[in-house]
Amino acid sequence: MKPWMKNVRQVEPYVPGEQPKALNVTKLNTNENPYPPAPGVAEKLMQIQANHLRRYPDPNCGVLVSALAEYYQVPKERMFVGVGSDDVLAMAFMTFFNSDKPILFPDISYAFYEVWADMFRIPFEKQLLDAEFRLVKEDYYKENGGVIFPNPNAPTSLYVPLEAVEEIVRANPSSVVIVDEAYIDFGGESAMKLTEKYDNLLVVQTFSKSRSLAGMRIGFAIGHEDLIQALNSVKFSFNSYTMNETALLLGAEAVRDEAYFQNTIQKIIAARNEAEERLQSLGFTFPKPMGNFIFATHKTLPAAELFQALREADIYVRYFNKPRIDNYLRITVGTPEQMEVLYRFVEDYQAAR
Amino acid sequence: MKPWMKNVRQVEPYVPGEQPKALNVTKLNTNENPYPPAPGVAEKLMQIQANHLRRYPDPNCGVLVSALAEYYQVPKERMFVGVGSDDVLAMAFMTFFNSDKPILFPDISYAFYEVWADMFRIPFEKQLLDAEFRLVKEDYYKENGGVIFPNPNAPTSLYVPLEAVEEIVRANPSSVVIVDEAYIDFGGESAMKLTEKYDNLLVVQTFSKSRSLAGMRIGFAIGHEDLIQALNSVKFSFNSYTMNETALLLGAEAVRDEAYFQNTIQKIIAARNEAEERLQSLGFTFPKPMGNFIFATHKTLPAAELFQALREADIYVRYFNKPRIDNYLRITVGTPEQMEVLYRFVEDYQAAR
Repeated sequence: MKPWMKNVRQVEPYVPGEQPKALNVTKLNTNENPYPPAPGVAEKLMQIQANHLRRYPDPNCGVLVSALAEYYQVPKERMFVGVGSDDVLAMAFMTFFNSDKPILFPDISYAFYEVWADMFRIPFEKQLLDAEFRLVKEDYYKENGGVIFPNPNAPTSLYVPLEAVEEIVRANPSSVVIVDEAYIDFGGESAMKLTEKYDNLLVVQTFSKSRSLAGMRIGFAIGHEDLIQALNSVKFSFNSYTMNETALLLGAEAVRDEAYFQNTIQKIIAARNEAEERLQSLGFTFPKPMGNFIFATHKTLPAAELFQALREADIYVRYFNKPRIDNYLRITVGTPEQMEVLYRFVEDYQAAR
Repeated sequence: MKPWMKNVRQVEPYVPGEQPKALNVTKLNTNENPYPPAPGVAEKLMQIQANHLRRYPDPNCGVLVSALAEYYQVPKERMFVGVGSDDVLAMAFMTFFNSDKPILFPDISYAFYEVWADMFRIPFEKQLLDAEFRLVKEDYYKENGGVIFPNPNAPTSLYVPLEAVEEIVRANPSSVVIVDEAYIDFGGESAMKLTEKYDNLLVVQTFSKSRSLAGMRIGFAIGHEDLIQALNSVKFSFNSYTMNETALLLGAEAVRDEAYFQNTIQKIIAARNEAEERLQSLGFTFPKPMGNFIFATHKTLPAAELFQALREADIYVRYFNKPRIDNYLRITVGTPEQMEVLYRFVEDYQAAR
């Protein structure tokens, strides 16, 4: 071992879903939106002057914070933005989870929570979802150093009703509770409004799913002014200029076109409803999906095998080789055409088996 | 105090230089490049398809890593990229500085080093520069948990010859030595080549200065494959997709036009040479500048007063109210026209005083 290696931080990094470069694959593996961002984004992109890029961007991200504050009708002081919700969540872990007591999150959940806890040396204790993958709210009433869960959950797509979220927040006045709402726009009700009532609640969302801007890396958090101020202090202690100029400008544009946004969401929900029927008739079962993805297991086809077969046919879905979920596939809801490719493949595959 | 506040990380954040929104100010305060990025960047910007932004960017940043690896003639496995050199350095602090022994850096240096050390709970010990702001290499031979210094130094603009850098690296086989070369392209010789010989040396550079892309937030590091792998593990434990699609594409384009790059650099060096003469004749003294900025003190005008007067005249320079340097101004080398505005103001100000 090299002598300097003893001081190197050892971590088990998160492995993101594959990003195949070919454009002709059916890509249903990373929960991207199959529709382009709002037309205003393309227009704004044409207007950006390369010459302006020689200057630092606004460290306070004014244009994007203002657009979001206006859209969600919250004061700017309650809005934080970052490089995707991963950046926002990583900063939030660093900022709020500094207790010796363990933070709590579901055992089946966004895999990054454990990675961040490990990286920042935060003790944690996973809480088991029930046999149907439902979150048991009482598990989060015990003493802790913080609470985080996605709603809808990933990779299960299951939604926790707002009343249960509120009960968890109320039960934890001494901890910051983070609700990770990456998929909330696909039918759930956001806990955003509760941030007016509870100063210990941070709601995190992203532009990567419902806003069709995964490529631009934009996430945001809404919470009490004191929470946002603490987050900003850590952000400014890490990197003053996290958001580049193009992200600020295109992000601001993406929240302006409400009609386009609603239309996109409705198309995805319709495709998801259709997918529920079709997948069921193909022999899959799954928890009620409320994100833009379905967490499905098949009555006869083993998930690992089907995953490989799909991949060889250039159909990408996500498979997690982990306890309790190793017979499930997470399937992003794509366009009706993409979904048709998937249904047909499974049909043929079953027939030929 | 709110009960959840006890677990909040308390930090003293870095305060970045002002980014005035008005375009008619003479902006010599954040060491930006006064010339636009290479023409290819503007062309590429016009070619980016908004529709592609719905997909996640390549988490391995392939296009940018390849362009840099080719330009600097190093294998891709020895190249790391991040959201500005601040992001690269923050990740490097987290990755390499995990000892109980203090890390060492100069007392007058990039202010962020102390902020990161504080944030990541890394013990540190500042080493005094000599009376002429020169780094004393022997100060870095003692036991330590890591070494970092900028070369040329900021805010002094003083350069440490490569032989001295090599001696520091050689004296520290048990530590990672980081050389922060944000300003190296303006006349210094990079330590990059030494990374072939020393596996404990990490060289960090940025697109924000010589490449005219501060607005895009792009930085990179070159080092031994093991160092880069360790950095990538931490990066993938923080945020899989730190660099957005536009940063990857425009960054790759920015390193392709060598003739334009050299021309820009030469113009800035010429303006700096001119500035040395002019500022001297106006009564300033300064260490020999090797960055795109001059760290100047005036024989009669107090720096704080001149800073204010300049600001009221819409001429922005940087002033640090800190021990040993509170009578200095850091003046970015702008275009000859911008510099003329500065010289004339100082002339008139002295005459009217």
